[in-house]
Amino acid sequence: MEVANRYITIKTQVDGEPKESDFELKTSALSLSLDSGSNDMIVKNLYVSIDPYQINRMKSHSSSQKAIGFAAAITPGEAIDAYGVAKVVASANPEFEKDDLVVGLITWGDYSLLKGGNYMLRKFDPMGFPLSYQVGILGFSGLTAYGGFFKVCKPKKGEKVFVSAASGSVGNLVGQYAKLFGCYVVGCAGSKEKVALLKEKLGFDDAFNYKEESDLKSALKRYFPDGIDIYFDNVGAEMLEAAVANMNTFGRVAVCGVISEYTDAAKRAAPDMLDVVYKRITIQGFLAADHMNVFSDFISTTTDHLRTGKLYAIEDVSNGLESFPSAFIGLFRGHNTGKKIVKVADE
Amino acid sequence: MEVANRYITIKTQVDGEPKESDFELKTSALSLSLDSGSNDMIVKNLYVSIDPYQINRMKSHSSSQKAIGFAAAITPGEAIDAYGVAKVVASANPEFEKDDLVVGLITWGDYSLLKGGNYMLRKFDPMGFPLSYQVGILGFSGLTAYGGFFKVCKPKKGEKVFVSAASGSVGNLVGQYAKLFGCYVVGCAGSKEKVALLKEKLGFDDAFNYKEESDLKSALKRYFPDGIDIYFDNVGAEMLEAAVANMNTFGRVAVCGVISEYTDAAKRAAPDMLDVVYKRITIQGFLAADHMNVFSDFISTTTDHLRTGKLYAIEDVSNGLESFPSAFIGLFRGHNTGKKIVKVADE
Repeated sequence: MEVANRYITIKTQVDGEPKESDFELKTSALSLSLDSGSNDMIVKNLYVSIDPYQINRMKSHSSSQKAIGFAAAITPGEAIDAYGVAKVVASANPEFEKDDLVVGLITWGDYSLLKGGNYMLRKFDPMGFPLSYQVGILGFSGLTAYGGFFKVCKPKKGEKVFVSAASGSVGNLVGQYAKLFGCYVVGCAGSKEKVALLKEKLGFDDAFNYKEESDLKSALKRYFPDGIDIYFDNVGAEMLEAAVANMNTFGRVAVCGVISEYTDAAKRAAPDMLDVVYKRITIQGFLAADHMNVFSDFISTTTDHLRTGKLYAIEDVSNGLESFPSAFIGLFRGHNTGKKIVKVADE
Repeated sequence: MEVANRYITIKTQVDGEPKESDFELKTSALSLSLDSGSNDMIVKNLYVSIDPYQINRMKSHSSSQKAIGFAAAITPGEAIDAYGVAKVVASANPEFEKDDLVVGLITWGDYSLLKGGNYMLRKFDPMGFPLSYQVGILGFSGLTAYGGFFKVCKPKKGEKVFVSAASGSVGNLVGQYAKLFGCYVVGCAGSKEKVALLKEKLGFDDAFNYKEESDLKSALKRYFPDGIDIYFDNVGAEMLEAAVANMNTFGRVAVCGVISEYTDAAKRAAPDMLDVVYKRITIQGFLAADHMNVFSDFISTTTDHLRTGKLYAIEDVSNGLESFPSAFIGLFRGHNTGKKIVKVADE
């Protein structure tokens, strides 16, 4: 048996802001008969995580990633790989059976052919939650927020926390975890609606629209008259500079991502290092993968809070394979609210 | 009895590079009779520490210091206060006697009048070492190097360490501690003679003259083909950017000072935050005062190494009160090798 497998590729490397014409929908025939003993597997993709960092894998040059061999470059013409939820349709791997639900590295396509058995994929128990949660609040977005906040920021109750891109997939969770932990939390986002979501639904103490602020340093001074203890940075550039200027002694900056710099190689944060010295500020980059040791804590804490209604999963789902490019491009234009997901197919 | 007390002041705030005309030598009469019960004390200044950070106290505006109340601004017309060694000449404080040797906060002057008893000064035992060591290798320069390297950088044996301003008061000690600990150490400095000192006398594995390098990023790539694990930053700006670009995963940057930025408010380091995230780099500012808890370790380790000849005290002493301005100005022109000290008087 054979199926037509549609998938999304980049036509060539993408430098700068991604646009629709950078992407292409291709179709190829995919045989569902697998050689026994190959350990190959074919899964039907259901929910796929749409993440800003993927733009760095699409660039013609990205020294950071080459240096560490992390998240290799995406090859033009091939299906883009991404984290997602899928269902096994054919398996030559004895550990997986047809209809198993799996989460891990799949593709921007209808199906993913996983070869050889070394694929990064595991079975999971939905625990009564929607399958999409596996790519967001119970997946790497959640772990990034949890590990980044608790392990990198090392919060104390009552500390003052600032989150940028606070309505984004990670930011909204950082703010929610910080509130549940007992911190004072202010977030910034890019629209009135997002600001309202943070304040009214997610319980942030305050929030503001950074697009309405001509001087970010003064804005932060207004929202944090007593200074910032923790800054969870998702954006970089001027916001990082403004946060450092408003930080308290022994303040901590967790650098989770720098989305404002991803599509503009010339854009950089130049925080005042005199502040860093005199206020003994720590600026630390991290990846969710560094915090796998807290994965079970993260899952039990997060599912408890979800069940008691103390934590909200904010999802922004686009439907259908054709929506991958616009879903991805929208990340860099601030179109998403919460976790951006493409739903490829029904279970 | 009365003495003529000469002292150095700034005429007005100093923004930008300091120059001779910013300073003034004044003389005032100082009575050596103190009111009993006043706890006042008069000391004769012997050795005074000359430190780059003092320029930040001379500025018309320094937000960092205002924010944290650390090292208050220097008032034009008044004697500049600084860390140094002195001898008590008159004391209305029962804890001190005439001829006691003391170390702590004194002045750029012949004598310091210390009022009220709350002065930051203590008696000390020279332990057989020159008195000048108290303001350098056995004082805050030493503690800065020791605390910064061991507590902030958290080295492991065999790690690769880069030190900037490596022939400076702190840098030369960081390199020596790092070598004694078992790290691979490369330093940069601003002259052929300094580079020779690092390699030939202080045991650095390698060293280079940054003024001969047109591309610091490539230079560091050459000296660290396997990457940098620890960067002890004394200079900031382009060197910090180049170090971050060459850092290994989980690399640590201890920001001790940013001398290249002190006299040029427009000069900033803009390290690539994508590197900081992907390589999980930590950039941490610190002050020696944060590491008082390791003071006794620092003293015992350092005096042991000095006695066995494994550690060298590199001092650069100017003689006489008149030399304060040129000694200080020279710091920003790279004139000093090792700890810059003004010897005001013989014991």
